[in-house]
Amino acid sequence: MDRDNKQIGGHRGSPNRSKVMRSMGRNRPPRRFGTGGPRPFAPSGDRGTPPMVIPPIGDALRIIPLGGVEEIGKNMTAIEFGNDIIVIDAGFQFKDEATPGIDYILPNTKYLEERKDRIRALFITHGHLDHIGGIPYIIDRIGYPMIYTRQFGAIMIQKRQEEFPHLKPLDIKVITGNETITCGSLKIKTFPISHTIPDSMGLIITTPYGDIVFIEDVRVDNIKGVPTEEEVKQYQQFAGREMLLLTMDSTSIEKPGFSLSESVVIENIEKYVKNVTGRLIIGTFASQVERIIAIIKMAEKYNKKVVVEGRSMKTNIEIIKHLKLLDVKNIIPAEQIESYPPDRIVMLVTGAQGEEFAALMRMATKQHKYVQLRKTDTVLLSSSIIPTNYNAVIKLKDNLYRTESKVITYLDSDIHASGHGNRDELKWIHEQIKYKFFIPLHGHHYMLRQHSELAQSIGVPRENIVVPDNGSIIEIRDQGKTITVLKEKAANNLVLVDGFAVGDVQEVVIRDRQLLAQDGMFIIFAIIDSQTGRLRKSPDIISRGFVYLRESQDLLRETRTIIKNTIEDSARGMNPLNVEMIKGNVTDAISRHLFQETAKRPVVIPVLLTV
Amino acid sequence: MDRDNKQIGGHRGSPNRSKVMRSMGRNRPPRRFGTGGPRPFAPSGDRGTPPMVIPPIGDALRIIPLGGVEEIGKNMTAIEFGNDIIVIDAGFQFKDEATPGIDYILPNTKYLEERKDRIRALFITHGHLDHIGGIPYIIDRIGYPMIYTRQFGAIMIQKRQEEFPHLKPLDIKVITGNETITCGSLKIKTFPISHTIPDSMGLIITTPYGDIVFIEDVRVDNIKGVPTEEEVKQYQQFAGREMLLLTMDSTSIEKPGFSLSESVVIENIEKYVKNVTGRLIIGTFASQVERIIAIIKMAEKYNKKVVVEGRSMKTNIEIIKHLKLLDVKNIIPAEQIESYPPDRIVMLVTGAQGEEFAALMRMATKQHKYVQLRKTDTVLLSSSIIPTNYNAVIKLKDNLYRTESKVITYLDSDIHASGHGNRDELKWIHEQIKYKFFIPLHGHHYMLRQHSELAQSIGVPRENIVVPDNGSIIEIRDQGKTITVLKEKAANNLVLVDGFAVGDVQEVVIRDRQLLAQDGMFIIFAIIDSQTGRLRKSPDIISRGFVYLRESQDLLRETRTIIKNTIEDSARGMNPLNVEMIKGNVTDAISRHLFQETAKRPVVIPVLLTV
Repeated sequence: MDRDNKQIGGHRGSPNRSKVMRSMGRNRPPRRFGTGGPRPFAPSGDRGTPPMVIPPIGDALRIIPLGGVEEIGKNMTAIEFGNDIIVIDAGFQFKDEATPGIDYILPNTKYLEERKDRIRALFITHGHLDHIGGIPYIIDRIGYPMIYTRQFGAIMIQKRQEEFPHLKPLDIKVITGNETITCGSLKIKTFPISHTIPDSMGLIITTPYGDIVFIEDVRVDNIKGVPTEEEVKQYQQFAGREMLLLTMDSTSIEKPGFSLSESVVIENIEKYVKNVTGRLIIGTFASQVERIIAIIKMAEKYNKKVVVEGRSMKTNIEIIKHLKLLDVKNIIPAEQIESYPPDRIVMLVTGAQGEEFAALMRMATKQHKYVQLRKTDTVLLSSSIIPTNYNAVIKLKDNLYRTESKVITYLDSDIHASGHGNRDELKWIHEQIKYKFFIPLHGHHYMLRQHSELAQSIGVPRENIVVPDNGSIIEIRDQGKTITVLKEKAANNLVLVDGFAVGDVQEVVIRDRQLLAQDGMFIIFAIIDSQTGRLRKSPDIISRGFVYLRESQDLLRETRTIIKNTIEDSARGMNPLNVEMIKGNVTDAISRHLFQETAKRPVVIPVLLTV
Repeated sequence: MDRDNKQIGGHRGSPNRSKVMRSMGRNRPPRRFGTGGPRPFAPSGDRGTPPMVIPPIGDALRIIPLGGVEEIGKNMTAIEFGNDIIVIDAGFQFKDEATPGIDYILPNTKYLEERKDRIRALFITHGHLDHIGGIPYIIDRIGYPMIYTRQFGAIMIQKRQEEFPHLKPLDIKVITGNETITCGSLKIKTFPISHTIPDSMGLIITTPYGDIVFIEDVRVDNIKGVPTEEEVKQYQQFAGREMLLLTMDSTSIEKPGFSLSESVVIENIEKYVKNVTGRLIIGTFASQVERIIAIIKMAEKYNKKVVVEGRSMKTNIEIIKHLKLLDVKNIIPAEQIESYPPDRIVMLVTGAQGEEFAALMRMATKQHKYVQLRKTDTVLLSSSIIPTNYNAVIKLKDNLYRTESKVITYLDSDIHASGHGNRDELKWIHEQIKYKFFIPLHGHHYMLRQHSELAQSIGVPRENIVVPDNGSIIEIRDQGKTITVLKEKAANNLVLVDGFAVGDVQEVVIRDRQLLAQDGMFIIFAIIDSQTGRLRKSPDIISRGFVYLRESQDLLRETRTIIKNTIEDSARGMNPLNVEMIKGNVTDAISRHLFQETAKRPVVIPVLLTV
């Protein structure tokens, strides 16, 4: 039997497969693999393979977005001057349809790994997963630098790290806002900004060429488009100063005007808490920590008990308790819910995005141990729909309506606001900070381009703006006079978390998953007599995900005949047997036959044993 | 070698697999298969398995929605009285993430197949695929009834049928609007309604108990919320009449107010056609036939040439020409585009939803033979984003922005309106027609429920409204006095088109595809000496979509050792060998080992040959 490594792993099997596929256009829609979302492994955009050699930094100040500027997620940026690098954020991104079976996508840290002796610190702007989720996978690779963040983020990072007991403990330094951190030639101060989670911060990085204002996720709290006094105060420190560079979140640049104020959201939710006569179930993102705090407070105000369901929600409430952000006295366990009249109950639950196993879906589908929704319940979905969750949310809403409970969404009432500022909020921040250069961050390419247009609309020259890609090496040169992008890029191919494997998931593995998902597999075992070139017995077939073979006995019979004939015709007169050639012939013949009979193209793999 | 049918087809291989999986919770997110979208094969909703025996119809009037009331897509409804059935629409639905590899989902026609001698006609309300796409797969099963539809739909059906040359020719009768069609005890008249494709129609079905007004996809053309005169006239025929039953589209019930008028859309597009100084590229749905006609007309008005790219767009323009809906003189082939100055060119292209191989994406990524986008081009995306295409549209927009062309979407300018009326449009139609009973159609369950709430808000008693599921058998009884839903349902499990297989795709095949897409497969091939119970040689392994085995030689080596030990330990003292038991042991041991080493759970299949 031929057992070399060729049949193990990524070998496709048939050199003529594509020819077979081309010749078989029938009445089927074109196959689309991985449309939308990032394409794995391809160099991003149309910008070719990055050259290998990155020139030395010289006296430039480098800004290198390593993630988050061609997607929403996996935010990470490096700032480098001389011998000193600071890293800001270390997020991850969730998989999409282009990366089946993958757990997470990480920023590519190769540039940092090659320079890890120069890394002085990792700053984390806030505790959301697209800013902290990569830490357990990345921290070792970049040499366990000190992590600087504010209190809430610090606890989020610690909590998550507990799930990775094999890692060294993290060095985390909690920032209060009063300190200046010196990282070699870079000095960092931080300042509070508005988002949806406590202790979100921006950075002011003092460099020899001037100050960088580094802002990631941000919104501007406002009343009908007028920023609140607190917001105005937050940005007053920039009055009269000239900054070298501004960076900023671009997520909601497409949305016009100012976003709804979170205080309006809280007021509207309070009306429900106050007035609803049955149980009130509020589904929201666990990451909406400030809203959760407000809801628990208002429940207390109206003498209602709070039931919390969902792991991430419970975790975040533990952190809220731990930090004494709230004097939580009115939270009761779910099993006590029936001990109180319905109008005394407010529930805070996960699953407003339709997550199949989250609390809300289980309550709607009678899978929850203690709570089933009923006609007298009111369900508030205090969240928008993340577009990729659209189908899941529809399913949730269908199930909620089937319980006959009253369902209220952000379409019916102003009960959700985003943490990412709309266009005019971003514009307002631009107007508070006088700067020379601008780099939009945190968004897909087109969002960054729109953010660039916004900056130009308020007078920033186009040549002072860089719209980066992941891995772009941006240099500020001439003592801060010019900004430019190197033609060389930091490594930017996708780094995937796939089970325990990090980074080294091969393109062929993902492509095989996509093929298997479409048409399944068809594996042929046959034993050839090496003397006669004939089969010892009828070939065996194993198939999954193709067609239901038990009900396809005719197809099986014909296929076996073709296998036998193909092998014996190929082997005739061959001495010794060229098993690889016979395999190729079998793959071609069977792929073609199966496609003709079924219009499906399973992965065909022949295993030929010679005795 | 054991070659029984057990190893062929759907057998999972390991009875203990689920136990293995439960005991192995590590640092991974929970796996979600098929969240969102319809669940294949499960009886819909929470309503258990439909009983087998449907009672005879007696003197009831039956309305049976067979598709389209738990989804957007695959619309089909049967109306039955005495010995007569008419069927309205025969659409399909596109696959989603819950049905990998599937081409289309069809309405379940079992109820009709069992009664096909009573089917008098198939009426098609308009030529969109969610109303006609199922015809080639269904028409044979329901006995090739006469198809009644208006002219545009008739040609759309014919065009599509050409792709299925093995089918008998269709009997299509083109309706003009003046005729009454008698189908036994049912008499059908039709009337024009507004949608996005010419010749859309509603039905008035006269039954012995009264008249049914059957409306599917519909909008109300309006100027700032005031219906146009034409709309008012269209519905005047219902003034003073008492109808038995109304049915209606629920797609856009969540959107408040009136939708944007198509005439405003046309005006805005005209501004671009008139004023743009470079080439104008308009991406829209090929199904927006009326808009396409208007754009070609306005191009002619401003003396511009029209280039059409994309198969479905070209097909629909062929139909427009054929029906002489337009005197098309200014269309030029794409290869002539460079013969005209840029400001003389308007392009109509497919791909505004980010379809990977459609004209717009190819033009943006330099894959198009004749047209590459450039800085002086203006691209109008005259469409909304279908939520499930969100990632694809982002990719399109990223690529469009990278060409530096000017991109205008419906967010920037009013250049798109939906074909489905918003809440107040639907309400206006309700107010034009006096009816006793109401059945909302065309939407997900929650949309139908919201449509029911709308009807109640204008005074329809709840007990006169039925919110149906696919397969609900609704009976109007007592000479039209009462409406009720049978507890028995028409068959409603999913019918899938998977290559040439229609309907008989097994649940296990889809589940295998989902498993293979996540973690791939791992197939073990070993030869056991039946005398000694020992392996003849080291086992062979074939794997795809799992991990990259070429770089996992240690894992392979360990796994081979475990296979060998498991087989030989199991076989020790067995006489004869119980190959099934050995297989089970190997599957368990290897599944566990692979999960421990990789945190992945490939489909493990051992093939054991005894010699």
